[in-house]
Amino acid sequence: MKGLLLLMGCVFSFSVVADGEAEYNYREGIMNSAKGHISSMAAILKGQVHFKNLPVHADGMADVAGIMPDVFPAGSQTSKSEALAAVWDQPEAFKEAMDNFVDAANEMAVAAKSGDMGQIGPAIQALGGSCKGCHDDFREEHD
Amino acid sequence: MKGLLLLMGCVFSFSVVADGEAEYNYREGIMNSAKGHISSMAAILKGQVHFKNLPVHADGMADVAGIMPDVFPAGSQTSKSEALAAVWDQPEAFKEAMDNFVDAANEMAVAAKSGDMGQIGPAIQALGGSCKGCHDDFREEHD
Repeated sequence: MKGLLLLMGCVFSFSVVADGEAEYNYREGIMNSAKGHISSMAAILKGQVHFKNLPVHADGMADVAGIMPDVFPAGSQTSKSEALAAVWDQPEAFKEAMDNFVDAANEMAVAAKSGDMGQIGPAIQALGGSCKGCHDDFREEHD
Repeated sequence: MKGLLLLMGCVFSFSVVADGEAEYNYREGIMNSAKGHISSMAAILKGQVHFKNLPVHADGMADVAGIMPDVFPAGSQTSKSEALAAVWDQPEAFKEAMDNFVDAANEMAVAAKSGDMGQIGPAIQALGGSCKGCHDDFREEHD
């Protein structure tokens, strides 16, 4: 959190960073937004708490998914980025993986509003699978 | 990310965890949602990229803020939680800090839609300050 506060301190000065690094920094932010929303949904479903909040996170995820295809412009593969060269070298395959994610996020938003676990269960499985599908092929492997 | 995928694996089994731990897990998720959205806004403003996306994150933050006051129920102070006892021992002061955050998030959502840096600058400063205000008094200090 201290890092975040430092980051916010940087915002307040409105200094400008180089384009590739700026794109990477935003991509990291948006990925954290997505991670936050899916981990919130996971915690709700696993813990059976705050079920009424599920649509907030599902809608938040769908909104983030809608803008995610734009955050991998050419020139944004900095040394810090975990995005593999395949993102840019295999644009059709990357687009297909990203489309799967966007579709799955939109379907989860619909399912969450239904309140029906018969819809929610498969929808969040598909959403989790679409995250993993993209990360498996287009992101450095993590421990 | 591996931890997140494991977490999602747990979701898919729909196992149930104890209430206090479930509340803590969700609170961690929702805090990550908030962190993701503010770090996205910080990256947009610092990097001067994807400015049109600012309202997505500001609205996402306001939506998350709207449900955050409910995620500190009695009994959710587990050994993993970084929430200080003051959350529950000083409920009026905590409510005031939380109200400040909710108000600041709603004001940032309005400012983001205006597209006017004269409104956005003070609004994100107030939002960052409201995060810090609550973390300073009600959360364990971090390195």
